[in-house]
Amino acid sequence: MDSANLKLRRREELNGHRGMVVWFTGLSGAGKTTLARALAERLERAACHCVVMDGDDLRRGLCSDLGFSPQERAENIRRAGEMARMFAEAGMIVLAALISPYRADRARARALMPAGDFIEVHCHCPLEVCEQRDVKGLYRRARAGEISEFTGISSPYEAPEAPELRLDTAKLDLAACTERVLAVLHEHAVFSRGRRP
Amino acid sequence: MDSANLKLRRREELNGHRGMVVWFTGLSGAGKTTLARALAERLERAACHCVVMDGDDLRRGLCSDLGFSPQERAENIRRAGEMARMFAEAGMIVLAALISPYRADRARARALMPAGDFIEVHCHCPLEVCEQRDVKGLYRRARAGEISEFTGISSPYEAPEAPELRLDTAKLDLAACTERVLAVLHEHAVFSRGRRP
Repeated sequence: MDSANLKLRRREELNGHRGMVVWFTGLSGAGKTTLARALAERLERAACHCVVMDGDDLRRGLCSDLGFSPQERAENIRRAGEMARMFAEAGMIVLAALISPYRADRARARALMPAGDFIEVHCHCPLEVCEQRDVKGLYRRARAGEISEFTGISSPYEAPEAPELRLDTAKLDLAACTERVLAVLHEHAVFSRGRRP
Repeated sequence: MDSANLKLRRREELNGHRGMVVWFTGLSGAGKTTLARALAERLERAACHCVVMDGDDLRRGLCSDLGFSPQERAENIRRAGEMARMFAEAGMIVLAALISPYRADRARARALMPAGDFIEVHCHCPLEVCEQRDVKGLYRRARAGEISEFTGISSPYEAPEAPELRLDTAKLDLAACTERVLAVLHEHAVFSRGRRP
């Protein structure tokens, strides 16, 4: 084991868990960020080190130069993947909530991580339900033609074929979704012995 | 205090320090990354949460699409600044080692952080000394015309006018430099009471 690995081990012992990426994908309004935040709350209560990487935040900061064409979405997800990797390498549990509509882009983000350290969670919610919720008023604007290239309306969403977890967020409540993700984290032995968020 | 601030406080208590950015600027070969790594080693021994953000690493990952024109350097530092902010907001001490030759770009990175949470360290080393060391063989290649827009040779370096710390890395040894940076961190009350890296 080289010195970088040794240091990572030391940090994992200090933190009580290893660094890894939980990647929430799904339509706008499917509940990705809400779930990521609920999970962060839960993990932090157990003194785990985590960070929520929200797509809207990234577009205001790191990716503020990018639009929504397929090429720009690819670059947006490329950067998000690199960020997630860096956070994970720093020992954190990354909760990345991004529409990330293209399979190829998500696969690239996954490929940056060691096997087992990237957990894809598909927040599945029918378009009609997302559109009815329309928390940010974006669907209405997309239907009115005020926003172009809007995922689900005028831009495609490619659902994951084999995510680690698929949640029907229209049927399961937030508490149940949180438990399901936690269960997958435990299956992946993310936490040190005795640590039970 | 809103809930985001409360959570940050809780994390700071957990970590024993607040999140902030130490930004090392200087010519290639001035010792920025060496110093950042020595500091990380020291901080980690005291169970602090820190991360080294190295310019060369960023150019292989997050910024792999960028070259070395003034515009691309600006974008490189813009992204590095956004990354540093995100790490700091996640509670980490960020040790950013980047040539970052332009004052305006460094000022933008600083402006992303609250006052007192961005410490600029100028690793000052005469060009002749950096060129003589030439650890990566880049100066030789730049002089041979194999690398264009190389800072100090064919591209300008704008030294900081009022950095929090200026280190003569040609004169001070690594241990002394490390102590000087730590002293500035203590002056800025980065650590909780009793924590003395």
